[in-house]
Amino acid sequence: MKRRSFLKKSLKTAGVVPVIGASFPAIAKNRYEWRMVTSWPKGLPGLGTGAERLAETITKLSGGRLIIKVYSAGELVPALGVFDAVADGTAQMGHDASYYHLGKTEGSAFFTSFPWGLTANEIQAWVKYGNGQKLWDELYKPFGIRGFLAGNTGTQMLGWFRKEIKSLEDFKGLKFRAPGNQGKILKKLGAVPVILPGGELFTALQSGTIDGAEWVGPYNDLSLGFYQVCKYYYSYGYHEPGAALQLTVNEKAWQSLDNDLRSLIKTVAEATNHDMLAEYNARSGPALKTLVEKHGVKVMALPEEILLECGKAANEVLNEVYENGSYIVREIVQDFLKFRKEVIPWTRISEQAYLNARRLPFDFKLKI
Amino acid sequence: MKRRSFLKKSLKTAGVVPVIGASFPAIAKNRYEWRMVTSWPKGLPGLGTGAERLAETITKLSGGRLIIKVYSAGELVPALGVFDAVADGTAQMGHDASYYHLGKTEGSAFFTSFPWGLTANEIQAWVKYGNGQKLWDELYKPFGIRGFLAGNTGTQMLGWFRKEIKSLEDFKGLKFRAPGNQGKILKKLGAVPVILPGGELFTALQSGTIDGAEWVGPYNDLSLGFYQVCKYYYSYGYHEPGAALQLTVNEKAWQSLDNDLRSLIKTVAEATNHDMLAEYNARSGPALKTLVEKHGVKVMALPEEILLECGKAANEVLNEVYENGSYIVREIVQDFLKFRKEVIPWTRISEQAYLNARRLPFDFKLKI
Repeated sequence: MKRRSFLKKSLKTAGVVPVIGASFPAIAKNRYEWRMVTSWPKGLPGLGTGAERLAETITKLSGGRLIIKVYSAGELVPALGVFDAVADGTAQMGHDASYYHLGKTEGSAFFTSFPWGLTANEIQAWVKYGNGQKLWDELYKPFGIRGFLAGNTGTQMLGWFRKEIKSLEDFKGLKFRAPGNQGKILKKLGAVPVILPGGELFTALQSGTIDGAEWVGPYNDLSLGFYQVCKYYYSYGYHEPGAALQLTVNEKAWQSLDNDLRSLIKTVAEATNHDMLAEYNARSGPALKTLVEKHGVKVMALPEEILLECGKAANEVLNEVYENGSYIVREIVQDFLKFRKEVIPWTRISEQAYLNARRLPFDFKLKI
Repeated sequence: MKRRSFLKKSLKTAGVVPVIGASFPAIAKNRYEWRMVTSWPKGLPGLGTGAERLAETITKLSGGRLIIKVYSAGELVPALGVFDAVADGTAQMGHDASYYHLGKTEGSAFFTSFPWGLTANEIQAWVKYGNGQKLWDELYKPFGIRGFLAGNTGTQMLGWFRKEIKSLEDFKGLKFRAPGNQGKILKKLGAVPVILPGGELFTALQSGTIDGAEWVGPYNDLSLGFYQVCKYYYSYGYHEPGAALQLTVNEKAWQSLDNDLRSLIKTVAEATNHDMLAEYNARSGPALKTLVEKHGVKVMALPEEILLECGKAANEVLNEVYENGSYIVREIVQDFLKFRKEVIPWTRISEQAYLNARRLPFDFKLKI
């Protein structure tokens, strides 16, 4: 009984509300009311709606034992304050992108998307069936939080440009919104990377504060109206080939949770990987069509010689991260590279081979 | 009370065991013991282990209210008898591939993988955020079952061949294990398609009953030892670009279930899409390496002119399915084609563009 009352006491700080009379299945259950802070504007398609569905599903499937209230960007803490809020216990949970926090540790980049790294399916494979989750747990341990994959946008677009990019010269002095490692890459190529939250991009583009911007892809970008200011929409999104979102949980709150609720959180986070990616893949095609046909956007591909330079610059950034990295960051870089080397030969002869073969000129339609 | 006792009676046939004293959250809960029959040999990596994890997770997260016992192929019903067993109530649940049952309805092909159709991510998008699930429900309604996506192998390999395929001539008379629509395509090209369960393939190859076989990909194929008989392992797996597995549920059993348990099943099935694909993507690279380096397997690509003929034959099969199809099958074909047309332009400039760019000749490794 002593341990029990100690637990009850420590649980209170972690948002636990004891339930009187709860007796299924034959042991007393706690009831939790948790806050989940997010980086997303309220109702933002994909990122925001996916995070809201995650919270609703956990609440529902827990039978009301774990009630999660979602806060959009700025409601409780600023968009980029999610990590800190979960670490210091202001909220028990957070939903954002790990690579927003390179300032805390450069290792976090690898659990969103490192330039020229893993696609959505590949990062999910690395985290769940490779060493990814184990390394991630170790990386976040000093901060008192845990991270789980919870959603993915798929391969993003390189971004919006006011004018055509014909040579490396066109990057010189270009004020371009690009966070994290892509910012470092563009800087090496002579551009001026700018960091701004998504909600401020349109105004910054319109006023000329920036010359271009990357955000996500057609589904989100259409709704933010970038096409009104920029007409050139560039592939290839090498900088975020499969951008994963993270669910973070405060470690004390996690430890206070009944075991079955921990399993529930993991399973719902996993389902969210499927759910969010499916939403992006279903909505991006029609959004792209609207951008091109209704708004006259030109879909462009970065010339190969520039792409190659982006590759070389990314390799420099990778080596800098390694050289300046702590023990765990170095472990992550090494394991990430090992997994990438293992998975690429498979992707190449399976999905990649198929996607390219699908371009062959044969009819695939009804004759009627 | 009358309705209650009627319900109780009808529920008994659906595997319901009332729980005495269960009182959380404040209403009486039923307890269910269900059987899940599968098409998979016990412990088969990926397909089998994924189905087992699905059942375990539902059992665990339901707090023991829905206990699912898994039966491997042949234990309760034969590998290809899963659909019938779920339809007639022998089991409440099944895990297999919908396209095993083209004999019941040709529409079922589209919920596994139609040749030259959708990748894993694309089919998940169609089913959840397109019209896929609605059409699927309608297709299965007359059989008294429901289908849910529950796992995916990713793009498969075309299969194992004893000799090199240099021209269409090499297909003539070739006895090749290939089920469903791929069987029809190969027949149009002069081959002799053979249908055999996975467990019988090795012996059939060894005895010369068949000249070649498709099964899944490196992860499964390595464990079945096909490399001992065939040395040519062919891409492109256009026939199954993202083979989805299905969880089927008997409609009466589904209706008998408490609402929250229905949501639980849907969520765990969704998590299984992520889980199984991650397992295949993590394990296939190393398995491929073993096949090539240890067992001397030659990884080949079907020549483009043959691929093109496979495309033309697939289009004929698609049109035959449509022409001979019932109203709902025709609806499915039309919607599948519409979605495919919408999603391809997006896939092409996002993931496909990235995967091809990743082949550019720049270093991506540590300098040390």
